[in-house]
Amino acid sequence: MLSQAQEKFIRQLQKKKYRKKEASFIAEGEKIVNELISSNLSIQNIYALESWVKKAQLNKELNSKVNIITEKQLKKISALTTAQEVMAVVDIPKELRVLDCKENLVLALDNVKDPGNLGTIIRTADWFGIKQIVCSPECVDAFNPKVVQASMGSIFRVQLHYKNLYDWLNSLDCEVYAAHLKGKNLWKAELHNSGVLLMGNESMGISDELMQLVSSSLKIPAKGKAESLNVAVATAIFCAAFSREG
Amino acid sequence: MLSQAQEKFIRQLQKKKYRKKEASFIAEGEKIVNELISSNLSIQNIYALESWVKKAQLNKELNSKVNIITEKQLKKISALTTAQEVMAVVDIPKELRVLDCKENLVLALDNVKDPGNLGTIIRTADWFGIKQIVCSPECVDAFNPKVVQASMGSIFRVQLHYKNLYDWLNSLDCEVYAAHLKGKNLWKAELHNSGVLLMGNESMGISDELMQLVSSSLKIPAKGKAESLNVAVATAIFCAAFSREG
Repeated sequence: MLSQAQEKFIRQLQKKKYRKKEASFIAEGEKIVNELISSNLSIQNIYALESWVKKAQLNKELNSKVNIITEKQLKKISALTTAQEVMAVVDIPKELRVLDCKENLVLALDNVKDPGNLGTIIRTADWFGIKQIVCSPECVDAFNPKVVQASMGSIFRVQLHYKNLYDWLNSLDCEVYAAHLKGKNLWKAELHNSGVLLMGNESMGISDELMQLVSSSLKIPAKGKAESLNVAVATAIFCAAFSREG
Repeated sequence: MLSQAQEKFIRQLQKKKYRKKEASFIAEGEKIVNELISSNLSIQNIYALESWVKKAQLNKELNSKVNIITEKQLKKISALTTAQEVMAVVDIPKELRVLDCKENLVLALDNVKDPGNLGTIIRTADWFGIKQIVCSPECVDAFNPKVVQASMGSIFRVQLHYKNLYDWLNSLDCEVYAAHLKGKNLWKAELHNSGVLLMGNESMGISDELMQLVSSSLKIPAKGKAESLNVAVATAIFCAAFSREG
């Protein structure tokens, strides 16, 4: 069953304004909904084809939240080009305190705009055990369906924060590493697996204002001719370098 | 000017079948067309808004290939969601011989399907000075407009080959490294910056058949809970690890 009101509600959640207003977001696809079920996030409703319900082993509580719908209905509410078997509506988790960067490596993103990039960065952070990401307010919304998708479920484990990065970095007393094309060789730097790792916008990099607060500016040495690396790729190489040391 | 025949021709180049038949592909956007112009690829035609022509400093030969078109016309022939100022039709370069993997690190991709992933991998290869990528026939076509876009122009410098990977790897006498979740710790391996680095499909990894030909199976150690990394991200971390050693 899918009422018109439900359909409207779900479709609106594709927009940030409504996600904020309703404190809800959508998660789609078998793999991602499975990750969701084993996370501690609060699921409001599950909309699924009968084929999914048959193979999903759900407890009573979850079972009561399942609405069996048709392929046609799923297509209407899906944010994907090709709708999958299942979709869930989920509470946006409350923002917790940002971890102490003297003991943890916290990732900070200045103006990362592309949802695929942010999702991939969240997935990478999760792989390397980074628990929190602090985004500038200009970054794409973490609960944008494309971000959720690209994170492959890691969005349920990594906490995202949105803050004025200048004020936040300015209040800290820890190392601030930044990826910068004019920095020192990443492989020769002393990395501590704690502090803040700051990455910048897809085409403009890190803003000049924020660069003033950076204590260690590092680059990935190039051997070829590409002008730059994709931001999710650069973030991954940095995370790997920190993880290798720590 | 844009004739109906030209419009049809360009739109057809969004499909692999026609790219093969015409041995042509399209490249779009200011940044990418600038990279194209400074490459050694052969440009057939440039379709651009007057605003682009005014700022582009073209020599006589290129100038003769420019067709000034309207925004409306550009929108019709563009493969992008948001058309940019300029688009070029380019000859697909001839396949050269694959480099000797005893002296070069050659990247091999088994069944990489997503155009954004392949484009990002090409860009990353270019950054690290990897000159050739050998793809299995199942991989997405390298001249797919989305691949060209994500490569940010690196497609004009990195050579792509399509081959039966089993036969090709079987014919080689060099180290074959593979990214595998059950491999040894990448950071503890001896890497030589020559040989073949083999990466697998987005969800299935490397096929069992190809794994038989691998001499060194390596993994990026995880500290968190993500099941896997995005293939472009994993490739980048591997390339960085090889580049650091070499």
